[in-house]
Amino acid sequence: MKKIVSAALATLALGLAGFAVAQSFQKPEDAVKYRKATMTVMATHFGTVAAMANGRIPYDAAAATRSADIVATMATLHWAGFTPGTDKGETRAKPEIWSDAAKFKESGDKLAADTARLATAAKTGNLDNLKAAFGPTANNCKSCHDAFRKD
Amino acid sequence: MKKIVSAALATLALGLAGFAVAQSFQKPEDAVKYRKATMTVMATHFGTVAAMANGRIPYDAAAATRSADIVATMATLHWAGFTPGTDKGETRAKPEIWSDAAKFKESGDKLAADTARLATAAKTGNLDNLKAAFGPTANNCKSCHDAFRKD
Repeated sequence: MKKIVSAALATLALGLAGFAVAQSFQKPEDAVKYRKATMTVMATHFGTVAAMANGRIPYDAAAATRSADIVATMATLHWAGFTPGTDKGETRAKPEIWSDAAKFKESGDKLAADTARLATAAKTGNLDNLKAAFGPTANNCKSCHDAFRKD
Repeated sequence: MKKIVSAALATLALGLAGFAVAQSFQKPEDAVKYRKATMTVMATHFGTVAAMANGRIPYDAAAATRSADIVATMATLHWAGFTPGTDKGETRAKPEIWSDAAKFKESGDKLAADTARLATAAKTGNLDNLKAAFGPTANNCKSCHDAFRKD
């Protein structure tokens, strides 16, 4: 069983390498701090896109594009922080991240695709396109947090 | 005096808008959390570039480029988090950030320029170019932290 889990983790690491930045950390808490930081940056800029999509702030095509690009970039980063042994300490990461690595990777791939589409939609300079791409991305955030993040 | 400070802050905000992403925060602590997160992401990826420049890990041109790009992007972000009223709480920000706004902006402009050069150097795929651009960027980090961050 242990071997199967290790193999799954190795596969996850290799699989994610396709879109993630290879990153090494000296201590497990560095990896946790890094992935939280990428989430904070992502959430802040996704919040800007959300506010425009929901009409809470005026639509600004350049700002939307910039924020959507940052969201898409961050979506490629945080996976590198979920290294084995980082399920402890100041983290809300559920054990399923490691025990159901295939599903976690699937969520990661979906987020990368959704956020890339959001960035492309933002570049059209059309608010309706932004709104259309916003919904699926927001749902993706929620479903991944429901499955892999503790309340 | 208050008016002068306000004017200086307005100038700073406008000046930084040239290279920073306009970003609004609901609470001062959100701004602090955001700027710390951008620093963490930057430091992690600058660490990767540093390790290659110093020969601690093998040179990988693609990984260096990717990390240098992230460093350059983050260098445009954290300024938006230094909004007025965010000198309190869980922060090591020195009051000089706001009282000597012109110098702080100068440091920000210099960092943006240095990290852009680092990203350009990384794209050449030549380790010597990366090393040459690394030094000035590292010095920039240090001098800004010395001037504007508490120990």
